[in-house]
Amino acid sequence: MEGVNQLKNKKYAADIDSIKGAHTRISPFIHKTPVLSSTSLNSISGKQLFFKCECFQKGGAFKIRGASNAIFSLEDDQAAKGVVTHSSGNHAAAISLAAKLRGIPAYVVIPKNAPACKVENVRRYGGQVIWSEATMQSRESTATAVQQRTGANLIHPFNDKRGGLISGVTLAAKSINPSIRVLAAEPMGADDAARSKLSGRLITLSDTNTIADGLRASLGDLTWPVVRDLVDDIVVLDENEIIKAMRLCYEILKLAVEPSGAIGLAAILSDQCKQKPYWKDMRKIAIVLSGGNVDLGVLWESLK
Amino acid sequence: MEGVNQLKNKKYAADIDSIKGAHTRISPFIHKTPVLSSTSLNSISGKQLFFKCECFQKGGAFKIRGASNAIFSLEDDQAAKGVVTHSSGNHAAAISLAAKLRGIPAYVVIPKNAPACKVENVRRYGGQVIWSEATMQSRESTATAVQQRTGANLIHPFNDKRGGLISGVTLAAKSINPSIRVLAAEPMGADDAARSKLSGRLITLSDTNTIADGLRASLGDLTWPVVRDLVDDIVVLDENEIIKAMRLCYEILKLAVEPSGAIGLAAILSDQCKQKPYWKDMRKIAIVLSGGNVDLGVLWESLK
Repeated sequence: MEGVNQLKNKKYAADIDSIKGAHTRISPFIHKTPVLSSTSLNSISGKQLFFKCECFQKGGAFKIRGASNAIFSLEDDQAAKGVVTHSSGNHAAAISLAAKLRGIPAYVVIPKNAPACKVENVRRYGGQVIWSEATMQSRESTATAVQQRTGANLIHPFNDKRGGLISGVTLAAKSINPSIRVLAAEPMGADDAARSKLSGRLITLSDTNTIADGLRASLGDLTWPVVRDLVDDIVVLDENEIIKAMRLCYEILKLAVEPSGAIGLAAILSDQCKQKPYWKDMRKIAIVLSGGNVDLGVLWESLK
Repeated sequence: MEGVNQLKNKKYAADIDSIKGAHTRISPFIHKTPVLSSTSLNSISGKQLFFKCECFQKGGAFKIRGASNAIFSLEDDQAAKGVVTHSSGNHAAAISLAAKLRGIPAYVVIPKNAPACKVENVRRYGGQVIWSEATMQSRESTATAVQQRTGANLIHPFNDKRGGLISGVTLAAKSINPSIRVLAAEPMGADDAARSKLSGRLITLSDTNTIADGLRASLGDLTWPVVRDLVDDIVVLDENEIIKAMRLCYEILKLAVEPSGAIGLAAILSDQCKQKPYWKDMRKIAIVLSGGNVDLGVLWESLK
């Protein structure tokens, strides 16, 4: 197991000790979210499924974990200048909330195509919104300008050793038990991780197109090595598979998740996954549902 | 406290002993549903709110409690002939599921205006659907005909000492602590309980009109005395208040509830409730969210 030996060499941006330290640091600020199960979905999938409900997390997504870890890791004099990030949604809200908890300003660069409900969350938590174009280049240059103007600390939305879902889950799971298989799920219209894994080098996409707006960001140089070496497989889903899984979350689990939050279930229910050589060996599967921030305006209009 | 003295006289259809007996009987068949809370909704309401998530219950509503209690109370020879009920939704599905668990047939009379997703639940659990007109008269006469043909046991949808939400909750709460205030919530278009309470006699409505399809049924002679004597107040909500509360369940609690499931929250957030003399005395409020079965077809169409 090459990956596990690499784990011992501590060549990654985090390890089980830094993850445990992060948990201690952030536990006053986060919820311990419940794990739910469903007889109906077990029956549909033929597996025993466990849903980690990060849609119930503060801010409606797992993002508060990394955001509060980063913000409460800052020294007081650093922290006083505030934090800046660029994000289309859940990370932006989480940074705003964590900064509010620490009592420091949050400058949040948001691309114009961000969902309205996520922008509202940023404002509710007291973040200062600065608009950018939808491209990663515009997001980054706008954030840099804010950073230069204010002296705020950049908390990167997807390439920071203090946060990150698939890399953090993978490092923790493989450290606890190397035989735990870790699958990532990705939308076809933002499949940089699958492309990177296939080609063996970090590929970023200049343009993404998916209903799963929380998954538009790319891997970075801190998270890519974990995905390259330790994530066992990446399942790529089309938009219909994501929407179908989202619908099952509402209709069977009774959970209001966003498209990005349903993609793990989509992976497990996909034909693609059932054809994998490891499928038959999987019995118990934990699925992270993150997050639950979605504009349901159409629904409320229809009920008026 | 006249009500509490009456409790001791055991003049109602159930008491704390029969409720405890029911819990023992049904506990193998039901979920212990979680109680969730939300800092945001506490802040909006100014109270400490506790949400009992019966939307997560088997069948997506509290109804499986009364249904399994009734069905597992039957003697074997009675039970063998099956059960019959009439219901526009959650009770119908619960009876189907409980009958399936006992291995007996369920004949379910469903009015033509029942939501499609609830009819699907009945079929998924193996209930035999018999259609009726939307009126209570048609529902009852159709059920009587089935009963005569099959010898099945009628499990009444809303007037049975073995089930019933507001009457059961009230009898249990007042027995445990008479100072617990119990509020009922009702849609304006199906406000038979509020009218009955006001006039002091059981009033049933021939016609109801509300988005809260789970609340269209009336009180019966078994539940009315409990509401009359022991329920402290009934808050009547208009359709907009119900939809607004439903929206908060999705956006803040991340729970997919049906309109009927959101009406308790609607009551607590209503201007009407804030003007009640008891409002200032209420600090901790438990709200039952039941159920979670709603057709979201408009939403899925819009995402295609």
